[in-house]
Amino acid sequence: MDRVQTHPQSIKTITFPDEDLLAAVEPIPEGITATVWDFRSEPEGMALDEIDAVILPYLNAGEILGELCRAKNLKLVQTQSTGVDGVRESVGEGVSIASAAGVHAAATAELAIGLILASLRGIDRAARDQLHAKWRHERRMSLADRKVLLVGVGGIGQEIAKRLEPFEVELTRVGNTARDDEVGHVHDTGQLVELARAHEVLVVITPLTESTRHLIDSRVLAALPDGALVVNVARGPVVDCEALTAEVVSGRLNCAVDVFDPEPIPHAHPLWRAENALITPHIGGNTTAFHPRMVRLLRAQLQALANGTDLCNVMRR
Amino acid sequence: MDRVQTHPQSIKTITFPDEDLLAAVEPIPEGITATVWDFRSEPEGMALDEIDAVILPYLNAGEILGELCRAKNLKLVQTQSTGVDGVRESVGEGVSIASAAGVHAAATAELAIGLILASLRGIDRAARDQLHAKWRHERRMSLADRKVLLVGVGGIGQEIAKRLEPFEVELTRVGNTARDDEVGHVHDTGQLVELARAHEVLVVITPLTESTRHLIDSRVLAALPDGALVVNVARGPVVDCEALTAEVVSGRLNCAVDVFDPEPIPHAHPLWRAENALITPHIGGNTTAFHPRMVRLLRAQLQALANGTDLCNVMRR
Repeated sequence: MDRVQTHPQSIKTITFPDEDLLAAVEPIPEGITATVWDFRSEPEGMALDEIDAVILPYLNAGEILGELCRAKNLKLVQTQSTGVDGVRESVGEGVSIASAAGVHAAATAELAIGLILASLRGIDRAARDQLHAKWRHERRMSLADRKVLLVGVGGIGQEIAKRLEPFEVELTRVGNTARDDEVGHVHDTGQLVELARAHEVLVVITPLTESTRHLIDSRVLAALPDGALVVNVARGPVVDCEALTAEVVSGRLNCAVDVFDPEPIPHAHPLWRAENALITPHIGGNTTAFHPRMVRLLRAQLQALANGTDLCNVMRR
Repeated sequence: MDRVQTHPQSIKTITFPDEDLLAAVEPIPEGITATVWDFRSEPEGMALDEIDAVILPYLNAGEILGELCRAKNLKLVQTQSTGVDGVRESVGEGVSIASAAGVHAAATAELAIGLILASLRGIDRAARDQLHAKWRHERRMSLADRKVLLVGVGGIGQEIAKRLEPFEVELTRVGNTARDDEVGHVHDTGQLVELARAHEVLVVITPLTESTRHLIDSRVLAALPDGALVVNVARGPVVDCEALTAEVVSGRLNCAVDVFDPEPIPHAHPLWRAENALITPHIGGNTTAFHPRMVRLLRAQLQALANGTDLCNVMRR
């Protein structure tokens, strides 16, 4: 994890979004004062302008970002998500943002593998067939022998690559910039259309930024071969979801998506009715793996604040 | 793969169950004569008593085993499945049996992982929710941090273990006899009840023999903790399916089964209606991975017959 100096010496108070998380992280290191602020009422036993740092809730954090401006002396926002889209816009220039990168990697990476396998092997169809006691034996595409294009080589991308390794696939990785690392070559996103032509499974796990919005656009999707599978465990808008829907509803491509644009997917949206779409309701990080890993990260962050040492996961501007 | 001497010198003729498989394996090595026998009509251009070896069909091989006795001089049966249950009883003592061990390992192992992930992470439930356009966000158990008990350390068991390795699980393996190998310790089946107590996921991938029938019985199932997941990708009768059904229908255990006893599961069977059961219709090996691997095995077997060298996968009595 990246460690960036964020003047932690000056941070002495921090708020937790709920009692349970505070109780799990306790004891709080000496020199730091912690309380609960749920962003609706006032913090318990602390004035708003005394707050140096806040921990956002895990679920629906977007809904309370507008309240952050009430903490006039805020210096640090700690998210419980890997992505911090929307947070930067809600706080002043002087406020640092630390993500929960790493906390969700195992859960999100395993969901990506689960979505690939469920879609390729027809586990989703079998689950629906169960409602009619239907035993429908058919030959499916295996993950073995597939050419997989992984777009995103950050923390979660690395965990996905690691989990794909024993599955007898041919893996091609794409990142922001072309480079070589200990595992092999990373292509840059400029080659996406060209690479898409030769790959049967596309897995998207890149952060949502202005440069990755609609990175997987209609051209990339059109370049994928017939019957290819698109898996999105990143953020909905990284994929042009209108173009994806068109390719899936026509039956040319398959998709397995944990995220979409918009979320939740509207009730009347045609993707719900596509047999070749597998939809999970943004559950990438929401597992039992989350709590112990989040508590470990928060304990480390509080200790860093108490010691005046560098915090983890602070985002560069 | 085990190589056992089976008097291959004396095998000069072999039948294929269909034209397509014969065409894919061709050219047939010099000295070997191959034709098609579908077990219903007579072999093409060959008398029944001229047949030295037969290749069984992949699907529903059990239905034609009764025809094998018509080939009076049969010396070898090559299956297209890993399991050879039922074949031994259908042929004389002097007939060798070669399995397709290895051919199905990748596809079956990846299905096991897919079933574990789909059940733990609620992918099956999400697939059913899709029918009602329902976006239901809930915290699930991750595969990360789980204690997994793998019963069966043969070819497919090894492939399952290899694929589980990067998922941050604690894996315990059980085989016929206790031993240590390069990966660690293998417990023997006598410890199953004791081991079951401490494991949240039980994966069954052991061949069906008289000693493994109902190996996973009501005592083993009762020892599993509440909410544990039972995954069967072996053969139905390795698990006491009546006892499993009782534990799943009561809601105490979850299951994800590709095989059952009997198959297909009868239409009125209560397991179909259990929300915490995931049922796939015995699709472990039936994927695109099968054909190229089967063709490779058959080419190697035919070459061994032509050269008079040892065959692969011949079963010991």
